[in-house]
Parts: sequence; C-alpha cells; structure tokens
Amino acid sequence: MNSAEIITIGDELLIGQTVDTNSAWMGMQLSMRGIRVNRITSVSDRREEIIAALDESLARVPLVLMTGGLGPTSDDITKQTLAEYFGTLLVMNQEVLEEVTARITRRNFEMNENNRRQALVPESCRILRNHAGTAPGMLFEKDGKIIISMPGVPSEMKHIMQEHVLPMISAMAGSHTIIHRNIMTFGTFEAKLAERLESFEKELPAMIKLAYLPAHGIIKLRLTGTGDDPELVQRTEEEQVRKLYSIIPEVIYAEDEVTLEETVGKLLFDNNLTVSTAESCTGGRIASMITTVPGSSAWFRGSVVAYDNSIKTGVLGVDPAIISRYGAVSEETVRAMAAGMRKLAATDYAVAVTGIAGPSGGTPEKPVGTVWIAVASARGIVAEKHRFADDRQVNISRSASTALNLLRKQIISR
Amino acid sequence: MNSAEIITIGDELLIGQTVDTNSAWMGMQLSMRGIRVNRITSVSDRREEIIAALDESLARVPLVLMTGGLGPTSDDITKQTLAEYFGTLLVMNQEVLEEVTARITRRNFEMNENNRRQALVPESCRILRNHAGTAPGMLFEKDGKIIISMPGVPSEMKHIMQEHVLPMISAMAGSHTIIHRNIMTFGTFEAKLAERLESFEKELPAMIKLAYLPAHGIIKLRLTGTGDDPELVQRTEEEQVRKLYSIIPEVIYAEDEVTLEETVGKLLFDNNLTVSTAESCTGGRIASMITTVPGSSAWFRGSVVAYDNSIKTGVLGVDPAIISRYGAVSEETVRAMAAGMRKLAATDYAVAVTGIAGPSGGTPEKPVGTVWIAVASARGIVAEKHRFADDRQVNISRSASTALNLLRKQIISR
Repeated sequence: MNSAEIITIGDELLIGQTVDTNSAWMGMQLSMRGIRVNRITSVSDRREEIIAALDESLARVPLVLMTGGLGPTSDDITKQTLAEYFGTLLVMNQEVLEEVTARITRRNFEMNENNRRQALVPESCRILRNHAGTAPGMLFEKDGKIIISMPGVPSEMKHIMQEHVLPMISAMAGSHTIIHRNIMTFGTFEAKLAERLESFEKELPAMIKLAYLPAHGIIKLRLTGTGDDPELVQRTEEEQVRKLYSIIPEVIYAEDEVTLEETVGKLLFDNNLTVSTAESCTGGRIASMITTVPGSSAWFRGSVVAYDNSIKTGVLGVDPAIISRYGAVSEETVRAMAAGMRKLAATDYAVAVTGIAGPSGGTPEKPVGTVWIAVASARGIVAEKHRFADDRQVNISRSASTALNLLRKQIISR
Repeated sequence: MNSAEIITIGDELLIGQTVDTNSAWMGMQLSMRGIRVNRITSVSDRREEIIAALDESLARVPLVLMTGGLGPTSDDITKQTLAEYFGTLLVMNQEVLEEVTARITRRNFEMNENNRRQALVPESCRILRNHAGTAPGMLFEKDGKIIISMPGVPSEMKHIMQEHVLPMISAMAGSHTIIHRNIMTFGTFEAKLAERLESFEKELPAMIKLAYLPAHGIIKLRLTGTGDDPELVQRTEEEQVRKLYSIIPEVIYAEDEVTLEETVGKLLFDNNLTVSTAESCTGGRIASMITTVPGSSAWFRGSVVAYDNSIKTGVLGVDPAIISRYGAVSEETVRAMAAGMRKLAATDYAVAVTGIAGPSGGTPEKPVGTVWIAVASARGIVAEKHRFADDRQVNISRSASTALNLLRKQIISR
C-alpha cells in the first residue's frame, strides 16, 4: 500500500466558495509516511459523481481517502452513496447515537431528526470515532483495497486522521522512507538558478529528486529522498544539501519554510541587535512584514513611512537640498533616509527604501520599478539600486523582500 | 459550452506543500459566468498523468482549464506534454521571445537557455500573452472543445484569465443573463447579518439569490440575478440592492469588490483631504494597505510605526507621563498618538492604533486582543476600544480594517 488518492466532495469546492485545504494537509501527512499521492479529485455532492470518482480512483490505487458530504443537511449524500456503492444498509449505531446525544445536549441543544441521522452508518463499515464532531469516519474494504470517508470540516478530518488513519498507515507503510528538505533562496530567479544547478541536477543520486517552488521572489528548493533505508536516505540527502550550499551559498537564506522576516528576526534577536525602517515606496510593508513575527518588539523599534517628501525632511531629517538636487528616488536620498532613521530610532540597523512603485511617476531616466535600498549600521551605509517590474504590487513586495535580504546580508557579514 | 473542468498540475500540490488556491478562484469566476465546474483534478508533473487527466476531462466537458508545469525548469513538462498530445511541434515564437527578453533585461538579468525555452510554444496553439510573467498561456482546440493551459503562479494565472479567458467565456455564454452585485459590509458578523436579513431573504424574488462571503472581517453580500431578460434581471436586482441599503445602511461601505482602503482613498481624494497614521500593534499594516492603492501619494502623507515607546514619545511627542500612568495601550495614549501624528504630518486626519496583538503581552485587565483606535481631525479626536481575537495575525488585520472604517465614518460624517 504505497500509493493513495484523495477525493474531496462538495459543491462549495467547485464553485470556489471554499478552498480545499484538506487535500494539502492529507497529502503532506501521507507523503511523510511514504505514501505517494497519485491524484486529488474534487467532485460535487452528486451520487453519480461520487461513484464515478471512487470507481476511477480504486482502479488506480489501493487506498482512497474521501472528505465531505457527511453533514446533517439534505445536500450531504456521501453516506447513503457509499452504503449503496458497497451494497450495505444504513443501520442505527447505538454507540455513535450516545456520543452524538451527549455532544448535542452538552451544548444545550435539543436532539432532532437530523442529529439522529448522524448515527445511521453503513452496516459493513468500520466506524472511526470522531471526538471533534458528530459525523463519524467510515472505513470500507473491497478487494483488498481500503476506502476511508471523513467529514469535510478540517478539524474533524484531522482528528480522525490522527486518531485512526495515520497510525494504521504508519503500521502498513513498513520500511519505505520519504524525507523532504526545503532550502529557501532569495535574490535570484528560477531560470538562473536552474542554470547554476544544471550539473548538480544531472549528478543527483536516483533516490533524490529536486523541485523548484517559486513564490513572491522566494524560490524554495525541495529535495525529496526516498528509499528503504532511512539512514541511507538521510545521509545521501544531507550530502546533496551540503553540495547546494557550496554551489549557491549567497542565495540560500534558510531551510524549512522560514520567511525572510523570521530569518532576520532570529539573527537580530540572537545577537541582541535592533532595527528600524524608513520607507517610501514600500509604504510600511517592511514594518508590516516584520511585525507579523511574534516577539518582534524585542528587536524592532519602529518605522517612518515617509511617503511625502515633507516627512523625509521633517521627520527623517533628510536635507531638502538633497531631494531637490538628486530627486526623492536617488542614492543620496536613500542614504540620508537610512542615516536619519538610525539616529531617530537609535537602532543598530536602519533599512531605507525609496522608489517608483507605479503605475505612474516613472520617467525615462527613472522608470517605474526603479528602487533604491539602503542599510545603515555602525559600519556605515550600503546602498543598492534595483529595477523591478511594471506592476505596483510586485514592486512593493519585491522591494520589501530585497530590503530584508540586504539587511540579512549586512547582519551576517558584520 | 456550459460546463468545464479544472486540472492543476504539480507534485507540490499532491505532497501538500502548496494549497491549490487556483482552482477555487477559477471555479468562482466560471460559476459567476454561468459555467458549471464539473470536477477539479490535481495530478503530478508526469507525462502519463497529465495525458490521462486531460483525456478523462475532455470525455466529460467541452472546456478544460489547466494550470501549472509551465516554469523554465526541467520538472515542468506541461508544454512538451501538450505539444505531444495535440501532435504539434514546439517552435520559437518571436513575439514571446522579445517579451521575455525585455522582461529579463529590464531587471538587469541575462537571458539564458532556460529563459529562451519559455518562448518555445506548440505550433498549433493560440498564445495567450502573459504580462505578469514569462510563461505564456496556450489555447488549444480539438473536436470543438477548448483546452487552456496557464502558469501555476496565481498572479500570472489570474492575469491570463482576466485578459483572455474570461472575456472569451462571457462572449460564449450567450443570451442567458447572469448579473452579480456585490455589496461590501464591515463592522458586523455573519450570524448577526443573517438575522437582520432574515425576512429580506425570505421575500427575495426567485430570480435573485443571496450569498454571504466573509473574509478578514469584511462580509461581501453577493446578489446573483439570473434570467433570459437582461433588463428585468437588472431592474429586479437593483430593487433588492436598494432594499439592502434601507435595512443595513450603516454596515455597507461600498459595492463591487472595493476594499476599505480604496473607499477611504476615494473619499479623501474627492474632497482634497489628507491622512497619516501612527501605528503600534498594527506595525505599519494600515500604511501598507493604504499604499497598495495606486495614486495614494495624493492623499496619504506618511506614517510613524511607534512599536517601541521611545518612538511614541520621541517622534510622536506622546508625554512619557501618559504612558507610565495609563499604559501604552490606553485611551489617553492613543489620543496622544493621533494628535501627535496629525501635527507631525500636517494632515487633515490622523489615525492611531495601539493594542496587544499577542501571543504574549496580555494581562487580566488588558487581555490579548485589546486595541484602542483613534482618529484625529479638526473637529477633535474620537477613540474606540475593541476586543478582537486571541490570534496575532487576526488582531493585526482586524485592527487595521477597523481603523480604516472609523476613518471612513469620520470623513462621511464631517
């Protein structure tokens, strides 16, 4: 039993009122236990659709996990459909009825016909008790294959998975190992990275696979190691990770789903350092990213969003002559902003950004997407010019990430 | 062409490293245009899987939308697979090549073989230009059916959908009229709203449906009118919208997917007014929301993120005695912050927020989620106390939206 499929049931998934987060969670849990997920299918609350999807999945894999359609209302028909599919009857299960009754009365509601129906279960299935809700999970076996149906409410699905399904899968999976490693990179783009990693990829041992997962300027490199010997997989993958560090050292900023702001925060916290930001075109985005990190008050003092030049001069103390001579988007201005902010907030580091986010405001010399970024510290000020995109939101987001990355580099090279 | 299927491609979806949000977005767009989504299928980046899923979908529906697997790296194989499937060759498309080259060189990167490959497209497809990235969309026709392949990056998929696919679908939808009206509300919650709209819902004409779409404190009420007579649908829906305004006037802030920051921005711009923000627990989120609005420099001057008390006193001029006597999270402090900011930035309005976002920092008197919000103007200062959630991200987001809503109310009641 080394492959599975997931079927999620519900009209709300197809019309986009609900994003299917269950599949990703189940997919990750299965992958981590060595089960390859072959396909995810979302179908509507219609008998024929459910039966067709189940038929097709069972033709491909020995394990099918289903969620959804187990609620108490009339549009939920998964249970009846499965009873029909497996040629069995719905019978009242006394234990489930007692549990549902206890649950309902505890919340001071009265049992009604809809609630009682929750305790009707297909006679031939194995009940997977649900302590997080009223609809039990159901396990069916057919021709040596296993079909599990769970409620679509994420907390109930997770409860049943953790209590019943995952322990069973771990026991069946036996010795097959899958280990994922995520290497987080920033400051390059996918095609460039692929070029630099071309021979690395070619030389990868058969048990290791590489995937590129780009999002908002960050490219996550995912190494997946598979095999029967956990130690061998672990060791081989570790060797490849070390190799990655030697080929692209300057773009790796962390491992394992860590954001740039978390990385910067940890560096500052661990070294008892502080930071502040002076933001023009990023409009507070850097401060906002930083302050999503719990505990950031320990290392972040504050920010001045100097959208108007009067704030650059009046609050940050930028000399008006600099702005009138070089412009608000210039190396001279960004340096003065960083220096002014560092002084104002009395922080070890100050990050400053000024640029033209667009859609308007560009000139031939300074087109939309032109951004100056500076980091001031006791060692002085470093400043970089960047040219991002034509899109306002992309420019804001890239500018903010690039500024955090420059800060990160300045901290580690101090 | 009244039904469609969606196929999302990528190992990252199956192993749960990425939640498939594309499907929900596409499903909603299609549903809104009268196209029923029959099934959503997620498959891996494997040739046979892609072909099997496409074969099966085409046997069921006349329109298939695919996303993913169009990146420049070797694990992305959708394009080659589709060329093979439709029996065509990959050819270099000069226009796409020029666009990719312009995009890459604009960012001061060099074109490499991987970038050039982005301009290789199946000869028989229609190119759907992608101004949000380097991989173009592709439209294939086969036996009167339409197959569209788009990149998996959400912003690029949405760009291609909005530029090319949705206009085409709307044109094909023909004479059956579907009209959506979105009424945006803020400052209430779903159960409460449903209670106030109970008889409104019961009395709705058969051709009009109502849906509640809550997200981040905003509840969008979507009225969907359907019928064969466009004028009748339009008129009937308009009557219901007017009725909504009479039942819940104080919570409606706009129509049609407009954000609070856009609404506030328009009010300020139209009346030649300006604003600034002084933010503690929101950490720059309000400024960041405001500056996502193009042209916000006309009415937004800047912000001081006073995360540390030294910034509250040193930059905003809050009397240290106020903070030590009443605490940083208090009516007195938030009023002083708003007044100080308004003076510092010389704006018509200043918004101030101070609170305990969590997870730590709460006390029995001021638990996590306690937030003070103030708006200062020529008429004086209004301040409100709120108690939001236990979750840091929710607290930041609700505080920011509630502050923008208080500002909106102050502007319209001036």
